[in-house]
Amino acid sequence: MRAELQPLTQALRTFATERDWAQFHSPKNLACALSVEAAELLEHFQWLTEEQSRALAGERKQAVAAEAADVLLYLLQLCDQLDIDLMAAAHLKLQANAEKYPVDKARGNSKKYTDL
Amino acid sequence: MRAELQPLTQALRTFATERDWAQFHSPKNLACALSVEAAELLEHFQWLTEEQSRALAGERKQAVAAEAADVLLYLLQLCDQLDIDLMAAAHLKLQANAEKYPVDKARGNSKKYTDL
Amino acid sequence: MRAELQPLTQALRTFATERDWAQFHSPKNLACALSVEAAELLEHFQWLTEEQSRALAGERKQAVAAEAADVLLYLLQLCDQLDIDLMAAAHLKLQANAEKYPVDKARGNSKKYTDL
Amino acid sequence: MRAELQPLTQALRTFATERDWAQFHSPKNLACALSVEAAELLEHFQWLTEEQSRALAGERKQAVAAEAADVLLYLLQLCDQLDIDLMAAAHLKLQANAEKYPVDKARGNSKKYTDL
Repeated sequence: MRAELQPLTQALRTFATERDWAQFHSPKNLACALSVEAAELLEHFQWLTEEQSRALAGERKQAVAAEAADVLLYLLQLCDQLDIDLMAAAHLKLQANAEKYPVDKARGNSKKYTDL
Repeated sequence: MRAELQPLTQALRTFATERDWAQFHSPKNLACALSVEAAELLEHFQWLTEEQSRALAGERKQAVAAEAADVLLYLLQLCDQLDIDLMAAAHLKLQANAEKYPVDKARGNSKKYTDL
Repeated sequence: MRAELQPLTQALRTFATERDWAQFHSPKNLACALSVEAAELLEHFQWLTEEQSRALAGERKQAVAAEAADVLLYLLQLCDQLDIDLMAAAHLKLQANAEKYPVDKARGNSKKYTDL
Repeated sequence: MRAELQPLTQALRTFATERDWAQFHSPKNLACALSVEAAELLEHFQWLTEEQSRALAGERKQAVAAEAADVLLYLLQLCDQLDIDLMAAAHLKLQANAEKYPVDKARGNSKKYTDL
């Protein structure tokens, strides 16, 4: 990772080391925490209509931003523990998606690539 | 968002626009997709011991990297739709965590801050 | 647990014992598996509108039924491992919900009880 | 559904009707809520070792029982909305698993059936 994510990852590493949390931060546990945070984010949307979700504002938007941050922080720590280059993986994925979902087949279609 | 995440977000926006996927990408739906991808990542760890999870390598590590990428891609799209500055939120969160988990109380302790 | 869930729980216990899976079935791992299965169920709905979700039929409904079954099977195994009486807990919860969401305050309202 | 789950499902239906919650209880929304509750259950285990998870007791066990109940309540409501016979699906799944995981191949092995 480079640029903005690398210093954040470094800050998280320092944070965990100062608290002697490496013992808890196995990739398995971080993967659990990541799922839990993603669900806390989802909780804000569970009873909203899609329209309401598009118009999120104020306190609830703030709360969603805080959960999004938690997701990122655990994701970075997980990748750091496993020595995964997240940005490289993201660019690879984007490229793979471009091949799996060619514009002409995928246009206006939410089907999984295996069903296109 | 700046630096490396901003161009990736822009690429995702173009990707979705070309496929006319804005209709599917409500924040609610993206929050669902984010949770689903986080769980697909977790699936790789569900039967592993923590020790095994620390030693992940080869194909399985590759697969985890691809799931981590999916998490990031949906997270960026969600923040983009809601006009959330993810990096700012992450730094705010890190600061808030430093206050909730003071080094002397949190050292070697995995308790939630409400139980410290 | 009584009646229909008890024999199912017993069948699951036999299934796991025959395969020597007790070693993998710690409550922590079963909780991971439960979350993973719940997300696989959610995956079927992530791009559907609520209306489409109400009209689910055919193969997709079959697939959702299979995921719902997986959720139940892991839930029963988790409760079995922890010696939790799931039906008793469910009835307790229903009673607690009746107190947290009194009809006059909760009518037509999706707010969490803490915000009512 | 028969025996113990049927009356519980009926009680949930009455509960929702009295509060005019049918409008919120689309299968999509219930699938979101199910995932959220499964993650709340997982949260109790995220920093525990497997050994600790096997020894859960007292307040934390009580809390896990309450989350397990929430999972069941949403699962029943989802199946009710979609007219899915959960017990029939569970027995079908158990049978399918017996074929996918033959005792001799699966013994002491946590691999997915596709990798056996």
